[in-house]
Amino acid sequence: MAIANFAPQTVADAGTYVPPVAEYAFLLKEAFGTDVVARATGGALSADDAGDALEAAGEFAAEVFAPLDRVGDQVGAQLVDGGVRTPDGFKEAYKAFAEAGWVSASVSEEAGGDGLPGSVTAALSEFWNASNAAFALCPGLSHGAISALQKNGSAELRSSYLPKLVSGEWTGTMNLTEPQAGSDLGAVRTMARDNGDGSWAVSGQKIFITWGDHDVADNIVHLVLARTEGAPEGHRGLSLFLVPKFKLDANGAPGERNSVVTVGLEHKLGIHASPTCVLQFEDATGYLVGELHQGLIGMFVMMNEARVGIGVQGLGVADRAYQRAFAYAHTRLQGSVLGLPEGTPIAGHPDVRRLLVSMSSRISAMRAFSVLVGDVHDRAESDGTGALAELFVPILKSWLTEQAVHVSSDAVQVHGGMGFIEETGAAQHFRDSRILPIYEGTTAIQSNDLVGRKVLRDKGETVSQVFALIREHLAALTATGNDVAKRLAERTERAVAAAERATQALLGFGASPRDAFAVSVPFQELLATLVGGWMHATIVNAVLAHTEVSADDERRLLEADFYSAHHLARVHALAETVAAGEIG
Amino acid sequence: MAIANFAPQTVADAGTYVPPVAEYAFLLKEAFGTDVVARATGGALSADDAGDALEAAGEFAAEVFAPLDRVGDQVGAQLVDGGVRTPDGFKEAYKAFAEAGWVSASVSEEAGGDGLPGSVTAALSEFWNASNAAFALCPGLSHGAISALQKNGSAELRSSYLPKLVSGEWTGTMNLTEPQAGSDLGAVRTMARDNGDGSWAVSGQKIFITWGDHDVADNIVHLVLARTEGAPEGHRGLSLFLVPKFKLDANGAPGERNSVVTVGLEHKLGIHASPTCVLQFEDATGYLVGELHQGLIGMFVMMNEARVGIGVQGLGVADRAYQRAFAYAHTRLQGSVLGLPEGTPIAGHPDVRRLLVSMSSRISAMRAFSVLVGDVHDRAESDGTGALAELFVPILKSWLTEQAVHVSSDAVQVHGGMGFIEETGAAQHFRDSRILPIYEGTTAIQSNDLVGRKVLRDKGETVSQVFALIREHLAALTATGNDVAKRLAERTERAVAAAERATQALLGFGASPRDAFAVSVPFQELLATLVGGWMHATIVNAVLAHTEVSADDERRLLEADFYSAHHLARVHALAETVAAGEIG
Repeated sequence: MAIANFAPQTVADAGTYVPPVAEYAFLLKEAFGTDVVARATGGALSADDAGDALEAAGEFAAEVFAPLDRVGDQVGAQLVDGGVRTPDGFKEAYKAFAEAGWVSASVSEEAGGDGLPGSVTAALSEFWNASNAAFALCPGLSHGAISALQKNGSAELRSSYLPKLVSGEWTGTMNLTEPQAGSDLGAVRTMARDNGDGSWAVSGQKIFITWGDHDVADNIVHLVLARTEGAPEGHRGLSLFLVPKFKLDANGAPGERNSVVTVGLEHKLGIHASPTCVLQFEDATGYLVGELHQGLIGMFVMMNEARVGIGVQGLGVADRAYQRAFAYAHTRLQGSVLGLPEGTPIAGHPDVRRLLVSMSSRISAMRAFSVLVGDVHDRAESDGTGALAELFVPILKSWLTEQAVHVSSDAVQVHGGMGFIEETGAAQHFRDSRILPIYEGTTAIQSNDLVGRKVLRDKGETVSQVFALIREHLAALTATGNDVAKRLAERTERAVAAAERATQALLGFGASPRDAFAVSVPFQELLATLVGGWMHATIVNAVLAHTEVSADDERRLLEADFYSAHHLARVHALAETVAAGEIG
Repeated sequence: MAIANFAPQTVADAGTYVPPVAEYAFLLKEAFGTDVVARATGGALSADDAGDALEAAGEFAAEVFAPLDRVGDQVGAQLVDGGVRTPDGFKEAYKAFAEAGWVSASVSEEAGGDGLPGSVTAALSEFWNASNAAFALCPGLSHGAISALQKNGSAELRSSYLPKLVSGEWTGTMNLTEPQAGSDLGAVRTMARDNGDGSWAVSGQKIFITWGDHDVADNIVHLVLARTEGAPEGHRGLSLFLVPKFKLDANGAPGERNSVVTVGLEHKLGIHASPTCVLQFEDATGYLVGELHQGLIGMFVMMNEARVGIGVQGLGVADRAYQRAFAYAHTRLQGSVLGLPEGTPIAGHPDVRRLLVSMSSRISAMRAFSVLVGDVHDRAESDGTGALAELFVPILKSWLTEQAVHVSSDAVQVHGGMGFIEETGAAQHFRDSRILPIYEGTTAIQSNDLVGRKVLRDKGETVSQVFALIREHLAALTATGNDVAKRLAERTERAVAAAERATQALLGFGASPRDAFAVSVPFQELLATLVGGWMHATIVNAVLAHTEVSADDERRLLEADFYSAHHLARVHALAETVAAGEIG
């Protein structure tokens, strides 16, 4: 293959967001050997049908959300007279978003939404997050609240709150963290006292509450983790309460202000448009969601979805940063480019090209995995892929968020000195990205979940299924006779073998769990990196089934070849690290 | 070795800077098997003598520079009435710095300074940069100007400008970049017209001029790259001019304002206290430095020093970020720590411990290399280590600056959600760090220099000397019988072999230079990672010569063992990547 991708191309303006609609069409319809939308919906919907929704969503993201990303960063959310004021344009954009049906699009039919399959909502989520990561958090949190209510709320709570959340007229939040209770929710001190009338009085302080207050919707439905009197200590004493910002009047409309006060707003490194609130609850009226002392279970319903959502946010931020770097590199002229004609932009320099292909090869793999995770969740109940779905969540969350930091850093580097200047826009993504491997469970928490609950607990059975699934692709790749495919198969086979050794090493740490947890992050990196190779193998098999190789197909082959030479090779180093266990 | 280093310790307040004076004493006196200060000065100065200077410098850094780091970030340099105003306290701090002799301390005796050896000035430079990276750039640039003047300036220029620069009463700048001329200096358009009276009229616009204007000193000596009438196109037509902010009066004192105007100040991601100026020269009076059309040679004198300086800046930023994370992790309580008693701070969690040791193991290796590079430069003329010195510069600059980004990112991660809150302070280092792999030549430019001029040009001869130097340590390590030393020797031997394969692959790309330059960054990462193993081997050999193992020695052994299991293993992946050449 010629070194073609440096060539001057039609390039979007650096601030423009171009939603990867065609790539999703390929992924939904072909990459996994079947139309995953049709399979998930029993034929009720096809990938082509979904394509129309993606086209419309992409347009909305590019035209409404993306232009607000800069003002969101520069002005940010502000606390004015005890309430959060969002930057100019946010309120109108949110209303348009809800009215266009984009909140309900990703809600299950049971809960009153459109019931699009997970593989499609993954695409929508990428578009919202790529175009405006800070804004996308707002409807993202509503989805968590909707799921928690749908699953555990009483009929009365569901009928009072669900329709407005699903329509987007109201938004939802998750209230977990307190100053002394971050990753360790067992330390939560917020108290709920039974009012004896079916309601509870909730008191305490919650911090880091994303979109905890704002002016874009008419009511906010807080889901609050609290302890009740006489409840057990630790995790087992926590219950979940619904606390509305405005209590509902006799007609079910927002009425009297509840005693939830925004006492502070954090000054953050990034996602400035997302208000991160300190909320004070003083005998605020709340309603129990689910059983007493089962709050953490209710919360985990939200958290699992939120973790997938934040993973996809990582993909979105990475792609936006990449698009900016790509546009800059294809317009900026600097120096003679080795072996190429005068006038070649910097995208042709060997190392700029390396950075760009490195970014896009990771993004394409992560995007394919995001679709797969959505699809596996869609099928979890019908075809027994539930264990796979659970294994994939911590990998998706860790991998896509950590790579968001790396890719957005690479995007700054492509810009040279201009990348460090705020006006260029590349720095914003780098700043925004840095929260992603932290919130909704840090990379360490994800990796401990992966190692402890998803690998050690079943003695490696589920992860071995993954290795078997990967190997299924390799013979087919080799049989194509294509050089890229053959190299990819050979490198992936060696990577699977390294992953098997690492898994055996983990299982061998039985007597010393610190050894396993001291290398949980390297083990997760290893699996994530291997999954990237798997996704490229999947893509290459689909590409080589085409009778004609399109420009997109050439890019896909290039990305696969690059990924296996530059990223997949890391698996061998990580396997050695995992085998070492805790040092010292 | 027990898992000891999580234990509650005397911990500095998170904002405090603790200069690593004792570590430098070890490095200067013992780590390299000899007192490198005594060797470099022919016995005129010993490591113990240097220790007094380091103690005093560390105190100054901690007490004067460090407390200004936060206000520097928050208020930043501002453009007021056409001049740059530094944040409160900067002016006084700079005067105290100059009066204490810290500018002249790092200047050669020939140029009128104290002539401290490079191994010692490396330590000073780390202290200034760790305590206040934005501030440290100011005297750092003076050193470049001093070197350029000392080497190429006329007797008259030297006598008029050098003493004031050396004393720190005036400061220096480097004026290279223009909007169309960043990495490619051949595109410089600033013109100098001969006034016929020994002076030149310089006109043009320069951007990204660090400390290009300020209020901390009485004059600013700009060294400006410009083209003269009738000069050849490209690099060979550039000359170097000295352009003072204030022209000198008959007594040599700053007099009439020269026509250099600060027309803009950049809004940057980090190092806010460092004014990054757009300077407009309009027939500004300048003086030729060195020969006509030899400007780039004069500039390279400054650039080589500046590259070493920025590398060490990376080390400083990394260490400050690490110190903050270490302090937080040893005071923050969250969750039960696996296998350890209640009340153990988060530093005891397996993954927090992993992050902390990962950071410190890289910092210790980079610090040792910084001393070695200073020492090799000291000896370059006397014992023929010049080729080594040249090989090391791009490795030092790339490695220490890239790791500054990674380590400061890890430091944010250790803080969890608090790391994303600006008040915590961790985010500043992450922001500050991001310029380091860009300015003074990006990582790609360093890596191309490494591959093209330092490896391919001599057919791998110098780099093979490095491999031989590394191997010299390994037999001794194995002979100690110590487990850490044996593992380190075994892993380093395999790493050297991988580096040799990668070098052979590079040399084999003779006919297709794009293949070599497409993997120049991975090759540089490989060598840098290997050098880290070498530094730990050096340190472990010195430690095991001790009759008693101190707490510092235990930490050093732990870091060496960790580095070889977690970082050195990457060499194998990188060797595979290098061998692949350009993809596609």
